[in-house]
Amino acid sequence: MSRDGIISAALALFHEEGLAKITMRRVAAVLDTGPASLYVYISDTEDLHAEILDALLAGIAVPSLPADWRGRLKGTLRSYMSVLFEHPELARMAMSTMPSGANYLALVEKTLALLKEGGVQDAEAAWAVDLLLLYATAQAAEKAAWKASPRSPSDFSSLTAAIDAADAEALPNITRLGAELLSGRGERLDWGFDVLINGILMTRRAETKA
Amino acid sequence: MSRDGIISAALALFHEEGLAKITMRRVAAVLDTGPASLYVYISDTEDLHAEILDALLAGIAVPSLPADWRGRLKGTLRSYMSVLFEHPELARMAMSTMPSGANYLALVEKTLALLKEGGVQDAEAAWAVDLLLLYATAQAAEKAAWKASPRSPSDFSSLTAAIDAADAEALPNITRLGAELLSGRGERLDWGFDVLINGILMTRRAETKA
Repeated sequence: MSRDGIISAALALFHEEGLAKITMRRVAAVLDTGPASLYVYISDTEDLHAEILDALLAGIAVPSLPADWRGRLKGTLRSYMSVLFEHPELARMAMSTMPSGANYLALVEKTLALLKEGGVQDAEAAWAVDLLLLYATAQAAEKAAWKASPRSPSDFSSLTAAIDAADAEALPNITRLGAELLSGRGERLDWGFDVLINGILMTRRAETKA
Repeated sequence: MSRDGIISAALALFHEEGLAKITMRRVAAVLDTGPASLYVYISDTEDLHAEILDALLAGIAVPSLPADWRGRLKGTLRSYMSVLFEHPELARMAMSTMPSGANYLALVEKTLALLKEGGVQDAEAAWAVDLLLLYATAQAAEKAAWKASPRSPSDFSSLTAAIDAADAEALPNITRLGAELLSGRGERLDWGFDVLINGILMTRRAETKA
């Protein structure tokens, strides 16, 4: 029995039966032992889920196209988001834990290398990587939650209804912008990436005003 | 019995006993009825929690100082974050639902008015408000989760340990930046706001490249 052995068993179970089945009890049963003996090597179910997320991140590669670093950075972040989007529970977990697995570190390294290629100085790059990954994680977690919840479409409609019904005197900007507030899909994500990248390129840590 | 009456009872209970006590069953008990009669007016516990979050957002005002719109925008977003930070469960909920209450709309309106004051065009402002609020919500949800979890300090240490132990050949940028990757507290949040604001000011939707 070893941590690696337990994680291998959990991964096999995950690929066969999905994340919901990955509990200390279930993984212990697969290994023909009791949950208590797993706790020597694994903290808890969240620890197992974090290892599964890290294993899924192994598939993330920096795309070779487009040629510009900005396009490859966006492609890398999109590839990370697609993993989270597939697994709403992992997306939620990625928001609330601080990943530290080997494949997550490799993603951080790739992001840092692309920022360096783009001319971002070390001081800013050190903070920018967290900002970019937080944005990607939060967008994926939000969309994964909407996908997972049967209520989401109606929640979306309540916001649409609230915007439509907004009092023009009290909420003049909301009334004026109306449906624009909820417009866009892929273009909105792309614009968000560009806002972050442009902001990172021009905002020094020492003097943070434009 | 009305939706407003039920929400008032839930708010009173929340102020006395905290969010954990706000369930359909408990609120029904306070109103001397069964949960079934609440479902005519309220969808579920999450619906109640969303109303409580909205009630808490009533306290958010745009600060009158500093005089510049950028400082007042940051102050408004910080005020929103402090509400979420106080209530980790509401922060998590704000990530996964799409708020549409009156006070949330008032926060959207205030943010839009400040962006307009700063010279942001309507097309960009309509998307920027969601980007700013997502960033504030995600930062608050992340920090609230760390505060709520007994494991968080050790997770943070595992990331520190992983960075310290990083292989310089495989992870040269992580090795070079080291502790800088985790540096900063308030200054990092402030820099993040400036990155977003600067990026919003210079990134048009039509041509999104800098």
